[in-house]
Amino acid sequence: MKASKKTLALGLALVIGSGAATAQVIGKADDQIRWRQSAYHTMAWSMGRIKANVEGTYNKDQVIEAANVIQAIANSKMGALFQPGTDSGKGWKNTRVKKEFFSDRETLGKVAGTYVKEANEMAKVAASGDAAAVKAQFGKLGDACGACHDKFRQED
Amino acid sequence: MKASKKTLALGLALVIGSGAATAQVIGKADDQIRWRQSAYHTMAWSMGRIKANVEGTYNKDQVIEAANVIQAIANSKMGALFQPGTDSGKGWKNTRVKKEFFSDRETLGKVAGTYVKEANEMAKVAASGDAAAVKAQFGKLGDACGACHDKFRQED
Repeated sequence: MKASKKTLALGLALVIGSGAATAQVIGKADDQIRWRQSAYHTMAWSMGRIKANVEGTYNKDQVIEAANVIQAIANSKMGALFQPGTDSGKGWKNTRVKKEFFSDRETLGKVAGTYVKEANEMAKVAASGDAAAVKAQFGKLGDACGACHDKFRQED
Repeated sequence: MKASKKTLALGLALVIGSGAATAQVIGKADDQIRWRQSAYHTMAWSMGRIKANVEGTYNKDQVIEAANVIQAIANSKMGALFQPGTDSGKGWKNTRVKKEFFSDRETLGKVAGTYVKEANEMAKVAASGDAAAVKAQFGKLGDACGACHDKFRQED
């Protein structure tokens, strides 16, 4: 039970920050929504690049570049962009975040922790240049992204 | 003269890719414009985070996180998102790229090379935790961003 709580706390700290490391809040609500939409789309572009490489001609450098972008964003504590008052509103478009994001911290901590773990692993595997391993890890990372979308993102 | 051409070629290769490392083209024109707008805004968020830290309470981890995002994006060969046909069009909003981006490769190579260099230096300085050095490097990186905006981005 304690271990589980520890994992949860770690997941939340990874994404939201905690204690002294709590991110300084910058931006108004609409800025925060636009920035988080931008960061998710930058990761989507990078996922698309990895996909194109594992399905087409494999280029180690391109996969490393894309995986490094995903890793850096995953470790940037984007939770700071989900301040109170950003549960609705418009950045580039209306936010699709569900209310549960702000209330179900336990599930959030779990899915967030998995996503950061798989993003870090993706960067490690990309550096190895092993195309088969990259393909497998790409699947795991995609599942981690999807788990958060399923729980916390409204359908279009 | 040769050295200068080498520097230019390096700058272009850093941003656009060259030879075997040319990025596989993914996305339609509007996707490419939306992805590059997203990546620039993700860097803008990260620059804002560094600014908040050098002007307010300095937190080493936050600056490292933000600098790593900028570095990873700067090294991701975003030139692949400026394919022919993306000189106009709408991603999140109408692109502001100037025609010169596609014609003046010499200037592009120079400003791009400087931007990648300063982004890499920013990540290195952030890791040191030296707030004064971070402040100075933040200024240099901001100048590098601004040089590209001046040359290749239309005013709103």
